[in-house]
Amino acid sequence: MRRRTGRRPGNPDTREAILVAARAAFAERGFDAASIRSIAAAAQVDPALVHHYFGSKDQLFLTAMEAPVDPRELLPKVLAGDRAGIGERLVRTFLGVWDSPAGAAGVALLRSAVSNEWTARLLREFLTTQVLRRVLDHLDVDPAELPLRGSLVASQLVGLGMMRHVIRLEPVASAAPEALVAAVGPTVQRYLTGDLSA
Amino acid sequence: MRRRTGRRPGNPDTREAILVAARAAFAERGFDAASIRSIAAAAQVDPALVHHYFGSKDQLFLTAMEAPVDPRELLPKVLAGDRAGIGERLVRTFLGVWDSPAGAAGVALLRSAVSNEWTARLLREFLTTQVLRRVLDHLDVDPAELPLRGSLVASQLVGLGMMRHVIRLEPVASAAPEALVAAVGPTVQRYLTGDLSA
Repeated sequence: MRRRTGRRPGNPDTREAILVAARAAFAERGFDAASIRSIAAAAQVDPALVHHYFGSKDQLFLTAMEAPVDPRELLPKVLAGDRAGIGERLVRTFLGVWDSPAGAAGVALLRSAVSNEWTARLLREFLTTQVLRRVLDHLDVDPAELPLRGSLVASQLVGLGMMRHVIRLEPVASAAPEALVAAVGPTVQRYLTGDLSA
Repeated sequence: MRRRTGRRPGNPDTREAILVAARAAFAERGFDAASIRSIAAAAQVDPALVHHYFGSKDQLFLTAMEAPVDPRELLPKVLAGDRAGIGERLVRTFLGVWDSPAGAAGVALLRSAVSNEWTARLLREFLTTQVLRRVLDHLDVDPAELPLRGSLVASQLVGLGMMRHVIRLEPVASAAPEALVAAVGPTVQRYLTGDLSA
Protein backbone atom coordinates (compact mmCIF):
# COMPACT_ATOMS: atom_id res chain seq x y z
CA MET A 1 0.00 0.00 0.00
CA ARG A 2 3.03 2.27 0.34
CA ARG A 3 3.27 3.73 -3.13
CA ARG A 4 -0.49 3.89 -3.50
CA THR A 5 -0.55 7.09 -1.50
CA GLY A 6 -1.26 10.04 -3.74
CA ARG A 7 -2.47 7.88 -6.61
CA ARG A 8 -5.97 8.64 -7.75
CA PRO A 9 -8.18 6.26 -9.70
CA GLY A 10 -7.39 7.11 -13.31
CA ASN A 11 -3.81 8.01 -12.48
CA PRO A 12 -1.81 6.94 -15.53
CA ASP A 13 1.13 5.85 -13.36
CA THR A 14 -1.10 3.54 -11.32
CA ARG A 15 -2.66 2.11 -14.45
CA GLU A 16 0.74 1.52 -16.03
CA ALA A 17 2.10 -0.04 -12.80
CA ILE A 18 -0.78 -2.53 -12.83
CA LEU A 19 -0.19 -3.37 -16.51
CA VAL A 20 3.55 -3.89 -15.92
CA ALA A 21 2.80 -6.22 -12.99
CA ALA A 22 0.13 -8.01 -15.02
CA ARG A 23 2.43 -8.63 -18.00
CA ALA A 24 5.07 -10.07 -15.68
CA ALA A 25 2.59 -12.28 -13.83
CA PHE A 26 0.83 -13.61 -16.94
CA ALA A 27 4.14 -14.30 -18.72
CA GLU A 28 5.84 -15.91 -15.72
CA ARG A 29 3.00 -17.89 -14.17
CA GLY A 30 0.46 -18.14 -16.98
CA PHE A 31 -3.09 -16.81 -17.16
CA ASP A 32 -4.70 -19.35 -14.83
CA ALA A 33 -2.12 -19.13 -12.03
CA ALA A 34 -1.75 -15.35 -12.04
CA SER A 35 -4.34 -13.83 -9.67
CA ILE A 36 -5.68 -10.29 -9.55
CA ARG A 37 -4.67 -10.29 -5.90
CA SER A 38 -1.02 -11.09 -6.68
CA ILE A 39 -0.90 -8.57 -9.53
CA ALA A 40 -2.33 -5.90 -7.25
CA ALA A 41 0.26 -6.76 -4.59
CA ALA A 42 3.09 -6.50 -7.12
CA ALA A 43 1.77 -3.12 -8.28
CA GLN A 44 1.25 -2.09 -4.67
CA VAL A 45 -2.41 -1.20 -5.13
CA ASP A 46 -5.68 -2.54 -3.74
CA PRO A 47 -7.20 -5.44 -5.77
CA ALA A 48 -10.44 -3.44 -5.98
CA LEU A 49 -8.57 -0.80 -7.94
CA VAL A 50 -7.48 -3.40 -10.52
CA HIS A 51 -11.11 -4.42 -10.97
CA HIS A 52 -12.13 -0.78 -11.12
CA TYR A 53 -9.66 -0.02 -13.92
CA PHE A 54 -9.79 -3.22 -15.92
CA GLY A 55 -12.92 -5.15 -15.00
CA SER A 56 -12.28 -8.87 -15.28
CA LYS A 57 -9.02 -10.82 -15.36
CA ASP A 58 -9.72 -11.58 -19.03
CA GLN A 59 -9.92 -7.87 -19.78
CA LEU A 60 -6.78 -7.11 -17.77
CA PHE A 61 -4.93 -9.80 -19.72
CA LEU A 62 -6.10 -8.54 -23.13
CA THR A 63 -5.11 -4.98 -22.22
CA ALA A 64 -1.76 -6.00 -20.74
CA MET A 65 -0.73 -8.00 -23.81
CA GLU A 66 -2.16 -5.39 -26.19
CA ALA A 67 -4.33 -8.00 -27.89
CA PRO A 68 -5.49 -6.69 -31.26
CA VAL A 69 -8.99 -8.11 -30.74
CA ASP A 70 -11.21 -9.42 -27.96
CA PRO A 71 -12.02 -13.04 -28.79
CA ARG A 72 -15.12 -12.83 -26.57
CA GLU A 73 -16.68 -10.55 -29.17
CA LEU A 74 -15.73 -12.74 -32.14
CA LEU A 75 -16.19 -16.30 -30.92
CA PRO A 76 -19.99 -16.35 -30.48
CA LYS A 77 -20.51 -16.31 -34.24
CA VAL A 78 -17.85 -19.00 -34.69
CA LEU A 79 -19.55 -21.21 -32.11
CA ALA A 80 -23.11 -20.57 -33.33
CA GLY A 81 -24.31 -22.98 -36.00
CA ASP A 82 -23.53 -26.54 -36.95
CA ARG A 83 -20.59 -28.41 -35.44
CA ALA A 84 -19.35 -29.54 -38.87
CA GLY A 85 -18.89 -25.93 -40.00
CA ILE A 86 -16.92 -24.65 -37.03
CA GLY A 87 -13.56 -25.10 -38.78
CA GLU A 88 -14.64 -22.96 -41.72
CA ARG A 89 -16.17 -20.32 -39.46
CA LEU A 90 -13.01 -20.15 -37.35
CA VAL A 91 -10.82 -19.66 -40.45
CA ARG A 92 -13.23 -17.04 -41.85
CA THR A 93 -13.22 -15.08 -38.58
CA PHE A 94 -9.43 -15.39 -38.26
CA LEU A 95 -8.90 -14.06 -41.80
CA GLY A 96 -11.38 -11.26 -41.14
CA VAL A 97 -9.33 -10.05 -38.18
CA TRP A 98 -6.05 -10.16 -40.08
CA ASP A 99 -7.57 -8.37 -43.07
CA SER A 100 -9.05 -5.65 -40.80
CA PRO A 101 -7.21 -2.68 -39.22
CA ALA A 102 -6.46 -4.99 -36.24
CA GLY A 103 -4.30 -7.08 -38.60
CA ALA A 104 -1.36 -4.69 -38.36
CA ALA A 105 -1.34 -5.13 -34.59
CA GLY A 106 -1.49 -8.89 -35.13
CA VAL A 107 1.57 -8.78 -37.37
CA ALA A 108 3.40 -6.67 -34.78
CA LEU A 109 2.47 -9.14 -32.04
CA LEU A 110 3.68 -12.08 -34.11
CA ARG A 111 6.94 -10.32 -34.95
CA SER A 112 7.52 -9.55 -31.29
CA ALA A 113 6.66 -13.10 -30.18
CA VAL A 114 9.25 -14.51 -32.57
CA SER A 115 12.08 -12.46 -31.10
CA ASN A 116 10.97 -12.01 -27.50
CA GLU A 117 10.35 -14.93 -25.14
CA TRP A 118 8.06 -12.90 -22.89
CA THR A 119 5.76 -11.94 -25.75
CA ALA A 120 5.86 -15.55 -26.96
CA ARG A 121 4.56 -16.66 -23.56
CA LEU A 122 1.80 -14.07 -23.60
CA LEU A 123 0.82 -15.11 -27.13
CA ARG A 124 0.73 -18.75 -26.01
CA GLU A 125 -1.54 -17.86 -23.08
CA PHE A 126 -3.74 -15.78 -25.38
CA LEU A 127 -4.16 -18.58 -27.91
CA THR A 128 -4.75 -21.20 -25.24
CA THR A 129 -6.99 -19.47 -22.72
CA GLN A 130 -8.74 -16.82 -24.81
CA VAL A 131 -9.35 -18.63 -28.07
CA LEU A 132 -8.72 -22.38 -28.23
CA ARG A 133 -10.10 -23.36 -24.82
CA ARG A 134 -13.34 -21.51 -25.55
CA VAL A 135 -13.76 -23.17 -28.91
CA LEU A 136 -12.90 -26.65 -27.63
CA ASP A 137 -15.04 -26.33 -24.48
CA HIS A 138 -17.94 -25.91 -26.87
CA LEU A 139 -17.27 -29.21 -28.65
CA ASP A 140 -17.91 -32.70 -27.38
CA VAL A 141 -14.36 -34.12 -27.62
CA ASP A 142 -12.19 -36.18 -25.28
CA PRO A 143 -10.76 -33.71 -22.71
CA ALA A 144 -7.41 -35.53 -22.85
CA GLU A 145 -7.11 -34.57 -26.53
CA LEU A 146 -7.92 -30.89 -26.08
CA PRO A 147 -4.34 -29.58 -25.75
CA LEU A 148 -3.11 -31.38 -28.88
CA ARG A 149 -6.17 -30.33 -30.87
CA GLY A 150 -5.75 -26.74 -29.74
CA SER A 151 -2.07 -26.52 -30.57
CA LEU A 152 -2.61 -28.08 -34.00
CA VAL A 153 -5.28 -25.49 -34.78
CA ALA A 154 -2.85 -22.80 -33.64
CA SER A 155 -0.10 -24.20 -35.86
CA GLN A 156 -2.32 -23.98 -38.96
CA LEU A 157 -3.84 -20.59 -38.20
CA VAL A 158 -0.59 -18.92 -37.16
CA GLY A 159 1.13 -20.47 -40.20
CA LEU A 160 -1.63 -19.08 -42.41
CA GLY A 161 -1.23 -15.62 -40.84
CA MET A 162 2.56 -15.83 -41.29
CA MET A 163 2.33 -16.78 -44.97
CA ARG A 164 -0.44 -14.30 -45.81
CA HIS A 165 0.78 -11.26 -43.90
CA VAL A 166 4.44 -11.65 -42.88
CA ILE A 167 6.30 -13.88 -45.37
CA ARG A 168 3.65 -13.03 -48.01
CA LEU A 169 3.91 -16.16 -50.09
CA GLU A 170 1.65 -16.06 -53.13
CA PRO A 171 -1.08 -16.98 -53.85
CA VAL A 172 -1.97 -17.34 -50.14
CA ALA A 173 -0.89 -13.73 -49.60
CA SER A 174 -3.58 -12.28 -51.84
CA ALA A 175 -6.12 -15.09 -52.26
CA ALA A 176 -9.79 -14.30 -51.72
CA PRO A 177 -10.68 -15.16 -48.12
CA GLU A 178 -13.34 -17.68 -49.20
CA ALA A 179 -10.79 -19.68 -51.25
CA LEU A 180 -8.70 -20.02 -48.09
CA VAL A 181 -11.77 -20.87 -46.00
CA ALA A 182 -12.56 -23.71 -48.43
CA ALA A 183 -8.96 -24.96 -48.43
CA VAL A 184 -8.05 -24.58 -44.74
CA GLY A 185 -11.46 -24.94 -43.05
CA PRO A 186 -11.47 -28.77 -43.35
CA THR A 187 -7.97 -28.90 -41.81
CA VAL A 188 -9.08 -26.94 -38.77
CA GLN A 189 -12.29 -28.97 -38.53
CA ARG A 190 -10.31 -32.22 -38.48
CA TYR A 191 -7.94 -30.86 -35.82
CA LEU A 192 -10.95 -29.86 -33.70
CA THR A 193 -13.20 -32.91 -34.05
CA GLY A 194 -11.60 -35.51 -36.37
CA ASP A 195 -9.42 -38.58 -35.91
CA LEU A 196 -5.81 -37.52 -35.37
CA SER A 197 -4.17 -40.95 -35.17
CA ALA A 198 -2.55 -42.54 -38.19
CA MET B 1 36.29 -6.80 -64.48
CA ARG B 2 38.04 -3.91 -62.73
CA ARG B 3 38.09 -5.15 -59.16
CA ARG B 4 38.78 -8.70 -60.17
CA THR B 5 42.46 -7.85 -60.59
CA GLY B 6 44.49 -9.36 -57.77
CA ARG B 7 41.73 -11.74 -56.67
CA ARG B 8 42.65 -15.38 -56.68
CA PRO B 9 40.17 -18.26 -56.73
CA GLY B 10 39.55 -18.91 -53.06
CA ASN B 11 40.04 -15.26 -52.17
CA PRO B 12 37.57 -14.67 -49.30
CA ASP B 13 36.82 -11.14 -50.52
CA THR B 14 35.86 -12.41 -53.97
CA ARG B 15 33.75 -15.16 -52.49
CA GLU B 16 31.97 -12.71 -50.19
CA ALA B 17 31.43 -10.21 -53.02
CA ILE B 18 29.72 -12.93 -55.04
CA LEU B 19 27.51 -13.90 -52.09
CA VAL B 20 26.52 -10.28 -51.45
CA ALA B 21 25.60 -9.85 -55.12
CA ALA B 22 23.75 -13.17 -55.11
CA ARG B 23 21.66 -12.30 -52.02
CA ALA B 24 20.67 -8.99 -53.60
CA ALA B 25 19.80 -10.58 -56.95
CA PHE B 26 17.82 -13.49 -55.49
CA ALA B 27 15.88 -11.23 -53.09
CA GLU B 28 15.18 -8.51 -55.65
CA ARG B 29 14.46 -10.52 -58.78
CA GLY B 30 13.73 -14.01 -57.45
CA PHE B 31 15.56 -17.27 -58.04
CA ASP B 32 14.38 -17.87 -61.61
CA ALA B 33 15.08 -14.37 -62.93
CA ALA B 34 18.46 -13.92 -61.26
CA SER B 35 21.20 -15.25 -63.57
CA ILE B 36 24.72 -16.32 -62.72
CA ARG B 37 25.83 -13.88 -65.42
CA SER B 38 24.11 -10.90 -63.78
CA ILE B 39 25.38 -11.89 -60.32
CA ALA B 40 28.93 -12.17 -61.67
CA ALA B 41 28.58 -8.75 -63.30
CA ALA B 42 27.37 -7.18 -60.05
CA ALA B 43 30.29 -8.76 -58.18
CA GLN B 44 32.65 -7.73 -60.98
CA VAL B 45 33.97 -11.23 -61.57
CA ASP B 46 33.86 -13.68 -64.44
CA PRO B 47 30.80 -15.99 -64.48
CA ALA B 48 33.18 -18.96 -64.68
CA LEU B 49 34.54 -17.99 -61.26
CA VAL B 50 31.03 -18.12 -59.78
CA HIS B 51 30.62 -21.65 -61.14
CA HIS B 52 34.10 -22.53 -59.89
CA TYR B 53 33.31 -21.40 -56.33
CA PHE B 54 29.70 -22.43 -55.99
CA GLY B 55 28.87 -24.97 -58.70
CA SER B 56 25.23 -24.63 -59.73
CA LYS B 57 22.80 -21.74 -59.27
CA ASP B 58 20.94 -23.91 -56.73
CA GLN B 59 24.11 -24.29 -54.69
CA LEU B 60 24.91 -20.57 -54.91
CA PHE B 61 21.40 -19.76 -53.72
CA LEU B 62 21.57 -22.18 -50.77
CA THR B 63 24.96 -20.80 -49.72
CA ALA B 64 23.91 -17.16 -50.17
CA MET B 65 20.77 -17.54 -48.03
CA GLU B 66 22.58 -19.73 -45.48
CA ALA B 67 20.00 -22.48 -45.90
CA PRO B 68 20.21 -24.87 -42.95
CA VAL B 69 19.77 -27.90 -45.23
CA ASP B 70 20.02 -28.84 -48.88
CA PRO B 71 16.56 -30.05 -49.95
CA ARG B 72 18.14 -31.96 -52.84
CA GLU B 73 19.60 -34.37 -50.29
CA LEU B 74 16.35 -34.78 -48.35
CA LEU B 75 13.65 -34.83 -50.98
CA PRO B 76 14.48 -38.12 -52.73
CA LYS B 77 13.28 -40.14 -49.73
CA VAL B 78 10.15 -37.97 -49.50
CA LEU B 79 9.38 -38.54 -53.17
CA ALA B 80 10.20 -42.26 -53.17
CA GLY B 81 7.27 -44.53 -52.31
CA ASP B 82 3.53 -44.31 -52.69
CA ARG B 83 1.81 -41.08 -53.66
CA ALA B 84 -0.69 -41.37 -50.79
CA GLY B 85 2.12 -41.29 -48.21
CA ILE B 86 3.97 -38.24 -49.48
CA GLY B 87 2.27 -35.90 -46.99
CA GLU B 88 3.39 -38.00 -44.03
CA ARG B 89 6.91 -38.41 -45.41
CA LEU B 90 7.22 -34.65 -45.99
CA VAL B 91 6.11 -33.88 -42.40
CA ARG B 92 8.47 -36.58 -41.02
CA THR B 93 11.43 -35.17 -42.96
CA PHE B 94 10.54 -31.59 -42.00
CA LEU B 95 10.38 -32.50 -38.30
CA GLY B 96 13.65 -34.41 -38.60
CA VAL B 97 15.43 -31.29 -39.87
CA TRP B 98 14.02 -29.06 -37.11
CA ASP B 99 14.87 -31.60 -34.43
CA SER B 100 18.45 -31.94 -35.78
CA PRO B 101 21.37 -29.52 -35.25
CA ALA B 102 20.18 -27.72 -38.42
CA GLY B 103 17.03 -26.78 -36.51
CA ALA B 104 18.71 -23.91 -34.69
CA ALA B 105 19.67 -22.38 -38.03
CA GLY B 106 16.07 -22.86 -39.15
CA VAL B 107 14.77 -20.97 -36.12
CA ALA B 108 17.28 -18.18 -36.78
CA LEU B 109 16.18 -17.99 -40.43
CA LEU B 110 12.51 -17.84 -39.44
CA ARG B 111 13.19 -15.14 -36.84
CA SER B 112 15.10 -13.11 -39.40
CA ALA B 113 12.41 -13.55 -42.07
CA VAL B 114 9.77 -12.20 -39.71
CA SER B 115 11.63 -8.95 -39.08
CA ASN B 116 13.55 -8.49 -42.33
CA GLU B 117 11.82 -8.19 -45.71
CA TRP B 118 14.94 -9.30 -47.60
CA THR B 119 15.23 -12.53 -45.64
CA ALA B 120 11.48 -13.06 -46.05
CA ARG B 121 11.94 -12.89 -49.82
CA LEU B 122 14.83 -15.35 -49.74
CA LEU B 123 12.81 -17.72 -47.56
CA ARG B 124 9.90 -17.45 -50.00
CA GLU B 125 12.19 -18.31 -52.92
CA PHE B 126 13.69 -21.18 -50.92
CA LEU B 127 10.31 -22.69 -50.09
CA THR B 128 8.98 -22.23 -53.60
CA THR B 129 11.90 -23.18 -55.83
CA GLN B 130 13.91 -25.56 -53.64
CA VAL B 131 11.19 -27.50 -51.83
CA LEU B 132 7.60 -27.11 -53.00
CA ARG B 133 8.21 -27.01 -56.75
CA ARG B 134 10.25 -30.21 -56.56
CA VAL B 135 7.59 -32.02 -54.56
CA LEU B 136 4.72 -30.83 -56.73
CA ASP B 137 6.55 -31.49 -60.03
CA HIS B 138 6.65 -35.09 -58.90
CA LEU B 139 2.87 -35.33 -58.49
CA ASP B 140 0.25 -35.48 -61.20
CA VAL B 141 -1.80 -32.40 -60.31
CA ASP B 142 -3.27 -29.54 -62.35
CA PRO B 143 -0.36 -27.11 -62.97
CA ALA B 144 -2.72 -24.16 -62.39
CA GLU B 145 -3.23 -25.35 -58.81
CA LEU B 146 0.46 -25.78 -57.97
CA PRO B 147 1.08 -22.33 -56.45
CA LEU B 148 -1.93 -22.54 -54.11
CA ARG B 149 -1.09 -26.11 -53.10
CA GLY B 150 2.52 -25.16 -52.43
CA SER B 151 1.72 -22.12 -50.34
CA LEU B 152 -0.85 -24.05 -48.28
CA VAL B 153 1.76 -26.72 -47.53
CA ALA B 154 4.16 -23.96 -46.52
CA SER B 155 1.54 -22.38 -44.24
CA GLN B 156 1.07 -25.65 -42.35
CA LEU B 157 4.73 -26.63 -42.14
CA VAL B 158 6.00 -23.17 -41.19
CA GLY B 159 3.19 -22.89 -38.63
CA LEU B 160 4.18 -26.25 -37.21
CA GLY B 161 7.82 -25.15 -36.97
CA MET B 162 6.75 -21.87 -35.32
CA MET B 163 4.60 -23.60 -32.70
CA ARG B 164 7.08 -26.38 -31.99
CA HIS B 165 10.32 -24.38 -31.91
CA VAL B 166 9.63 -20.65 -31.62
CA ILE B 167 6.35 -20.02 -29.76
CA ARG B 168 6.69 -23.49 -28.15
CA LEU B 169 3.03 -24.19 -27.57
CA GLU B 170 2.46 -27.51 -25.78
CA PRO B 171 1.90 -30.31 -26.53
CA VAL B 172 3.07 -29.64 -30.11
CA ALA B 173 6.36 -28.31 -28.72
CA SER B 174 7.39 -31.64 -27.21
CA ALA B 175 5.15 -34.21 -28.92
CA ALA B 176 6.77 -37.34 -30.37
CA PRO B 177 7.45 -36.71 -34.07
CA GLU B 178 5.27 -39.66 -35.13
CA ALA B 179 2.23 -38.23 -33.30
CA LEU B 180 2.64 -35.06 -35.36
CA VAL B 181 3.21 -37.05 -38.55
CA ALA B 182 -0.11 -38.83 -37.93
CA ALA B 183 -1.94 -35.60 -37.15
CA VAL B 184 -0.44 -33.26 -39.77
CA GLY B 185 0.49 -35.71 -42.56
CA PRO B 186 -3.11 -35.96 -43.87
CA THR B 187 -3.35 -32.14 -43.95
CA VAL B 188 -0.25 -31.86 -46.13
CA GLN B 189 -1.42 -34.77 -48.29
CA ARG B 190 -4.74 -33.04 -48.95
CA TYR B 191 -3.01 -29.76 -49.79
CA LEU B 192 -0.75 -31.62 -52.24
CA THR B 193 -3.23 -33.91 -53.99
CA GLY B 194 -6.74 -33.49 -52.53
CA ASP B 195 -9.80 -31.40 -53.37
CA LEU B 196 -9.33 -27.85 -52.09
CA SER B 197 -12.70 -26.37 -53.07
CA ALA B 198 -15.58 -26.18 -50.62
